[in-house]
Amino acid sequence: MFDSIAIVGATGAVGKIIRQLLVERDFPYKKITFLASARSAGTTIEFKGEQHTVKELTPEAFDDIDLAIGSTPDPVAKDFVPWAKERGCVVVDESGFWRMDPTVPLVVPEVNPDAALSHTGVIASPNCSTTQMVLAMKPLHEAGKIRRVVVSTYQATSGAGVAGQAELVDSSRAALEGKPVENKTFAHSIAFNLIPQIGSEKHEGYTSEEMKMVFETQKIFGDDSIKVCPTCVRVPVSNCHSESILVETEKKITVAEARELFAATPGIKVIDNLSAGEYPMPKDCDGDDATFIGRIREDLSCENGLAFWCVSDNLRKGAATNAVQIAELLVASSK
Amino acid sequence: MFDSIAIVGATGAVGKIIRQLLVERDFPYKKITFLASARSAGTTIEFKGEQHTVKELTPEAFDDIDLAIGSTPDPVAKDFVPWAKERGCVVVDESGFWRMDPTVPLVVPEVNPDAALSHTGVIASPNCSTTQMVLAMKPLHEAGKIRRVVVSTYQATSGAGVAGQAELVDSSRAALEGKPVENKTFAHSIAFNLIPQIGSEKHEGYTSEEMKMVFETQKIFGDDSIKVCPTCVRVPVSNCHSESILVETEKKITVAEARELFAATPGIKVIDNLSAGEYPMPKDCDGDDATFIGRIREDLSCENGLAFWCVSDNLRKGAATNAVQIAELLVASSK
Repeated sequence: MFDSIAIVGATGAVGKIIRQLLVERDFPYKKITFLASARSAGTTIEFKGEQHTVKELTPEAFDDIDLAIGSTPDPVAKDFVPWAKERGCVVVDESGFWRMDPTVPLVVPEVNPDAALSHTGVIASPNCSTTQMVLAMKPLHEAGKIRRVVVSTYQATSGAGVAGQAELVDSSRAALEGKPVENKTFAHSIAFNLIPQIGSEKHEGYTSEEMKMVFETQKIFGDDSIKVCPTCVRVPVSNCHSESILVETEKKITVAEARELFAATPGIKVIDNLSAGEYPMPKDCDGDDATFIGRIREDLSCENGLAFWCVSDNLRKGAATNAVQIAELLVASSK
Repeated sequence: MFDSIAIVGATGAVGKIIRQLLVERDFPYKKITFLASARSAGTTIEFKGEQHTVKELTPEAFDDIDLAIGSTPDPVAKDFVPWAKERGCVVVDESGFWRMDPTVPLVVPEVNPDAALSHTGVIASPNCSTTQMVLAMKPLHEAGKIRRVVVSTYQATSGAGVAGQAELVDSSRAALEGKPVENKTFAHSIAFNLIPQIGSEKHEGYTSEEMKMVFETQKIFGDDSIKVCPTCVRVPVSNCHSESILVETEKKITVAEARELFAATPGIKVIDNLSAGEYPMPKDCDGDDATFIGRIREDLSCENGLAFWCVSDNLRKGAATNAVQIAELLVASSK
């Protein structure tokens, strides 16, 4: 175990859930420190019945930390990860900054746990939209080798943090009251609307969010031959990302086989009874660590295709839970 | 032209827009009759400055009608279309009941106008989710022959009529006020949620709405070799359906070619400038007769694939506008 641990970005939406998870999962440590930007430093966090003052994120803050779990914007992670590494602190980083660095493992514990053990001081956790998809892909890839994925996302406003969720509430209320709808966090109004852009333009008409789904998937499976065509869309849902996924495999996987494979995979729960109106929905998956799969069916347009619907709490498995699971892998390997 | 026309289902969400369109497009007629179920019969509609009493939909109601445009539930259309045909009245029917009847043409005027002219008394207008997709497919199919379509929909509550839109407003308001959220029109709460089921279970895990997208597309193009894999999802948007579409063509079509082909197609408007944050969104397409296309890009997962985003007002082009356009074809052919 690690004696002294820290949460970096402790006051953010994901930081808050990381704190909950450390309690829920009885994560082992002797001392805990909460770090945040100068703006949040000095505020107080109650944790396990004790009051903790949030400290400012500085290089020296890592002097006595062994393990840090970070959830910060990319530019912050760019700075603080070297500060931690120089001081011998291992970092599990939720940001996008280090994910594609060839020296940094990118890990979903149910998919590629071994990668975590070859780290050189920092391990990255994938983007939320990637994590739930690769978890769903894992058993199908092992059983039939995935050649191609076509995915359309329905992403919640919590992916843009607390401010995104607040904007959904405020703008929806304004719209219902017939008042002008403002947007600050999102490029357009999200109230009762869809925004088919997440992130900035990155590559030949694809956004940064979409290219994360391509490159992170290939890195996690260690297989550049897996082709991914993503479309990422922001929807007026508070929390939990949903994905319409179609995979093509080298070897055919039947619906019955897929259902068994999914059900046998740790971290996946199958809810799939269309005639009874049972399938995963954001409202039912909020606050759960699992990745939910339903609407499993054979592709009508390709011999070896399989279509399904996948929902997961993007703040949990898409962020906090996956990071804490990586930290648990490190604890287990240090025993 | 037709001397005496009728709108069947005149008081419904689509009936209301058909009335607006007859004015907007200066549809020719001498006499107009508004028909509806016994529940709505007797109410008054103001049309072109005159008060019209809505008449009950009975066989005899068609005695002096030459052309009827109908937007009713399927069981109603099953009954009234034969009543009209027996009396020599031609019907343009928006319901799902007659669409797959081999003696009934299924028409999108920009796609297969000639089919309308071989009718035997009734012409069907496709399901809303099909109409905008086949319109988008049309120029690509002509240029490169479409082999396969993978489509995920983001469908508005207006697809379930006025009651669907009202339930979105009421349940969203309740959710924001922390009150219990009720659902009657939809199988689950639609407020800030997604429902990955539209229609009932129909075929091997696919819903009736999804199978409409398969069979209607093949019928409209007269080509059963076009494979379609649809996923239909209800989203908390009031009006305008959106679709994430990927097509695979026999002959490669570049992004530049696709943009030109779309722009040259009547009924399509291209809004496609990702770096400027410009693409079609439901909030901007409401009340417009066009089908909007953006996010046009090459598929990253297949050599001859093309991905794009398509939004259209499902009450207009997806229903009322397409029906009135079919009626206009009949007027033109009767000259």
